[in-house]
Amino acid sequence: MSSSESLHGVNYAPPRSFGTILKANLKEALFPDDPFHEFKNEKLSTKIIKGTQYFVPICQWLPKYDWKKNFKFDLLAGITIASLAIPQGISYAKLAELPPIIGLYSSFVPPLVYAIFGSSKHLAVGTVATCSLIVAESIQEKVKPHDNMTLYLSLFYTATLISGLLQTALGVLRLGFLVDFLSHSTITGFMGGTALVICLQQLKGILGLKHFTSHTDVVHVIRAVIQNRKEFTWQCALVGVFFLVFLQTARYVRKKKPNLFLVSAVAPIAVVVIGCAGAYCFKAEKHGIAIVGKLNKGINPPSLNLITFDPKYVYVAVKAGIITAMISLAEGIAIGRSFSILDNEQIDGNKEMIALGLMNIAGSFTSCYLTTGPFSKTAVNHSAGCKTQMSNVVMSVCMLLTLLFLAPLFGYTPLVALAAIIMSAMLGLIDYDKAIHLYKTDKYDFLICMAAFLGVAFISMDMGLMLSVGLALIRALLYVARPPTCKLGNITDTAAYRDIEQYPGSSGTQGMLILKLGSPIYFPNSNYIRERILRWVRDEQSFENSKRNEVEYLILDLGGITSIDITGVETLFDIRKCLEAKSIKMILVNPRIGVMEKLLVTHFIDKIGKESIFLTIEDAIENCRFSLKSSDHTKREDVEFA
Amino acid sequence: MSSSESLHGVNYAPPRSFGTILKANLKEALFPDDPFHEFKNEKLSTKIIKGTQYFVPICQWLPKYDWKKNFKFDLLAGITIASLAIPQGISYAKLAELPPIIGLYSSFVPPLVYAIFGSSKHLAVGTVATCSLIVAESIQEKVKPHDNMTLYLSLFYTATLISGLLQTALGVLRLGFLVDFLSHSTITGFMGGTALVICLQQLKGILGLKHFTSHTDVVHVIRAVIQNRKEFTWQCALVGVFFLVFLQTARYVRKKKPNLFLVSAVAPIAVVVIGCAGAYCFKAEKHGIAIVGKLNKGINPPSLNLITFDPKYVYVAVKAGIITAMISLAEGIAIGRSFSILDNEQIDGNKEMIALGLMNIAGSFTSCYLTTGPFSKTAVNHSAGCKTQMSNVVMSVCMLLTLLFLAPLFGYTPLVALAAIIMSAMLGLIDYDKAIHLYKTDKYDFLICMAAFLGVAFISMDMGLMLSVGLALIRALLYVARPPTCKLGNITDTAAYRDIEQYPGSSGTQGMLILKLGSPIYFPNSNYIRERILRWVRDEQSFENSKRNEVEYLILDLGGITSIDITGVETLFDIRKCLEAKSIKMILVNPRIGVMEKLLVTHFIDKIGKESIFLTIEDAIENCRFSLKSSDHTKREDVEFA
Repeated sequence: MSSSESLHGVNYAPPRSFGTILKANLKEALFPDDPFHEFKNEKLSTKIIKGTQYFVPICQWLPKYDWKKNFKFDLLAGITIASLAIPQGISYAKLAELPPIIGLYSSFVPPLVYAIFGSSKHLAVGTVATCSLIVAESIQEKVKPHDNMTLYLSLFYTATLISGLLQTALGVLRLGFLVDFLSHSTITGFMGGTALVICLQQLKGILGLKHFTSHTDVVHVIRAVIQNRKEFTWQCALVGVFFLVFLQTARYVRKKKPNLFLVSAVAPIAVVVIGCAGAYCFKAEKHGIAIVGKLNKGINPPSLNLITFDPKYVYVAVKAGIITAMISLAEGIAIGRSFSILDNEQIDGNKEMIALGLMNIAGSFTSCYLTTGPFSKTAVNHSAGCKTQMSNVVMSVCMLLTLLFLAPLFGYTPLVALAAIIMSAMLGLIDYDKAIHLYKTDKYDFLICMAAFLGVAFISMDMGLMLSVGLALIRALLYVARPPTCKLGNITDTAAYRDIEQYPGSSGTQGMLILKLGSPIYFPNSNYIRERILRWVRDEQSFENSKRNEVEYLILDLGGITSIDITGVETLFDIRKCLEAKSIKMILVNPRIGVMEKLLVTHFIDKIGKESIFLTIEDAIENCRFSLKSSDHTKREDVEFA
Repeated sequence: MSSSESLHGVNYAPPRSFGTILKANLKEALFPDDPFHEFKNEKLSTKIIKGTQYFVPICQWLPKYDWKKNFKFDLLAGITIASLAIPQGISYAKLAELPPIIGLYSSFVPPLVYAIFGSSKHLAVGTVATCSLIVAESIQEKVKPHDNMTLYLSLFYTATLISGLLQTALGVLRLGFLVDFLSHSTITGFMGGTALVICLQQLKGILGLKHFTSHTDVVHVIRAVIQNRKEFTWQCALVGVFFLVFLQTARYVRKKKPNLFLVSAVAPIAVVVIGCAGAYCFKAEKHGIAIVGKLNKGINPPSLNLITFDPKYVYVAVKAGIITAMISLAEGIAIGRSFSILDNEQIDGNKEMIALGLMNIAGSFTSCYLTTGPFSKTAVNHSAGCKTQMSNVVMSVCMLLTLLFLAPLFGYTPLVALAAIIMSAMLGLIDYDKAIHLYKTDKYDFLICMAAFLGVAFISMDMGLMLSVGLALIRALLYVARPPTCKLGNITDTAAYRDIEQYPGSSGTQGMLILKLGSPIYFPNSNYIRERILRWVRDEQSFENSKRNEVEYLILDLGGITSIDITGVETLFDIRKCLEAKSIKMILVNPRIGVMEKLLVTHFIDKIGKESIFLTIEDAIENCRFSLKSSDHTKREDVEFA
């Protein structure tokens, strides 16, 4: 390095070209995990093979599949999740006021598609209660199922298609990080709120009511229960409570003895089987206990012809599709990730999105509605010992057999059994512990969580979600608007300079004020940063300050600043002008690469001179000390902070 | 400090209470400039006096006003800006399709109110073209002025009241930083776009057309000019071009010889006077040159009774009020600030907001429409040598005299003269240099600027603004979503560790990987940070890397991280779990106070143990080196980075 380039060891290399920076930024923004690292520097043929294996994971795992060792595990896991898929499928379809058979269809095609494109070994595909209710709520704004079931179904398939297209698009465009804006706190609150709302909805089934409300909020639902209290059927309630106690006991057993997980996994199908048998033997309908009704044999009919883009209705389908796409993605990806961390693999979120999206596109053409990787089912799949995506194939085959031969039997399922299954599943989704943890550790995260919970419970599902995401965004923006600055002092007997609030024993230097700025310096915070810095200077020089310090040098540690924009550079100019008027010199320490480039290109460095920029705080202090005006400052004088 | 508390010198003081943190955060968020610092620790009586002086600045400057020394300057400045206010007032009122007298009213009451509550010495109050057009555009969605002028006026006053209330509320709630989200780039583009649009609108006046479009975008306006080309009046165009050349020459003279600023300051009133005289002598209307028409004598009538909240129309007034409040605030505050920096004073943005808000509230009750501190007028005020807010009082008195005695004379002003004045003012607002500067220094800022410019020019003013603010927010959020991380190396012969990309000569340490993280670690970026860190580790260990390094310690420098939320802490847990599987130990260096508190409260510190946290990178490396597994690592081995 030439001497002019390395004054004080600072690197003044000319800024990288716009193209280089853009490429680097795009790579960071879109490919942070460098997904193609495995087949860089390979031959073309290898690239093609590895590329295919990357995009279609079944090409990777199926040829190497160890039928002897793994198949028995995947078979057991597949049968277990299929036994869960039947009652859940029927229940959630009822929740969405769809024909129950759609729930069974939805566990046949999507798992097959996921097995081909999905990269998580543990994710089990299925419908979820939350999304079922959101889509139903949105579509019922325009069409009631009892008025026009064909149109209602059409809009469901359309919403599913839109969800799938959006998920695929986000994955292909590598925009998966958008899902991260649904924070854990939002999801905890939202899940809790929807679980509460769905539980309350089940009072209809448990109490045997015939009339109910289509609203989902707590107030409307409780009012509906009170208004229709005369329809209460004690036989129904008795059966309902019995099933609920049974399911909750099974869940409790599993919690206490994780090895007995099969008890809780097969409990729902047991409830359905017992319910069907009971309903058939005792002619339940005569005792006021409603049953599902006729279910036809046969696999999924095509539904491509039903998809509609009629401008009169498409709005609700698009709205439902977008919201559910984001929620089911957040759930599916988070779950895939957490199970892969257990087994120490890495999941590419964007690729998962494509798999989930393709699965929903295929689903919307074959009479399925929105599916994702629900937590309960995935946990069962994992506990049952699944080894690969083969367990989804097994589930799919089980569903095929059910659809071909057993479907009519499930027509006898009492509605109250389904209500008990849903209620029991939902009770497990209200995560009190997490909410308490949030309250204890981060009040703002707790607020975000409660906004989602209360919003969903008392307003509506989409309002609750938007409220919570809005609050979370305000926090993210507030951070950008108010990056913390702190005053640094020297920690005794070291060369380290640290926040004097955090390390009260550290000492300042006479005639100098050392500040560490928060990142980034951007248009939303540049005024704040200027005012805050000037306040630090004023406080330091104020007569009320017992450790009054006639500041002659302001040393700004930029080491933590990763980025600066034009407004930020203009702010630095302003600060310098204000300081000059007070005869204070501004010194910069350790600008990082992005900041240095911007300072060079805007000629800021030329203006303040390279002699005002240093690599370390020690260098800066050493240099300033030599030139301090008053002679009694030239010897080392440290001020102990209170 | 006890030894357990100061292991490796790190401070593990128990977290501050929620109340303390909340108070500190609120103070930073709302009172960054500590506005009350002047009367802390004073007697109650002093507090009351200083408080009144703080909130009503006229109590401070008027008693001390030096009539002998300053009044002559303020008088000259006041008369100068009054001579500007008359033509501008009439012109912009015409632009908004309001009766021209409203423009004169608007320069009488608001400057008086500003003189009482405003703290900037140089800001000159007046109407602005941009906001006039925005309000007109919005209100004309519902009411055309020629259909119902009373209602049109009502909605203008209502919009002004809403602007004023919003500005006052933002100031009182200390939410002034919201205005910062309108970045300089947005404002540059928006001003340029509106200037272009307004210039094109003046073609109607200059060419003497009678029919025109109410749309503001370029396409509609040019089409209207072509469609109505038969109405073209050559006399009008001749006069228009003459005036325009005259005004632009005056402006050019001022640019070349700043001492002759009076030439450009009085040029507009000269145009009006010449125009009036000419129109009166030559009976302009007979030659196809339209004039303003009758103007009545008399001061502002009250307009409180006209303010309407009729739900049928109030929406457009609210929309116009909110948009113009933000724009005029951004302009007013930015201008107040930049002139105060020239004179090295500090302006409290929130207090300015209250002054501007009160001025508009008072205006809406006295037949004035939206006013702010326009740049051109403020610059003239400053150049004319104003010393205090007294110049606004002088202007107000001049306007009073004009309204009482001279108003009818201005009725002869030819419309083409007004068009020339507006056009000339607007040509000065298109800031080519700034746009070129943006293009050269920051492409994304340039994009934000062009989005506003093109959006305003080709779509509509509010769409252009929203597009640009949207892009700026995406950038702010993208920063939050992708904080840069970098790998650190030791700079030869120093103890400093710096980014190896920026300082290619720096050397790594065998068996260790040192990363500096970007700030903050939050829900929108936690997945990114995890993936990025794991990628750094993978790259370091990869066989293709010629400087392959078997990492045993990952040292994370948290010194730049100012904040972490629950999701962020969970991510640190995840990273630790992933690293453990690869037998890599995670070491943290220098967590700042906010981060340390969150790590303590979530028991993260207990989990990883205090022996994994160090105050400096040197300490961390020293400690790790002792315990590196392979014996040949125990001696110092540095790796030179390529």
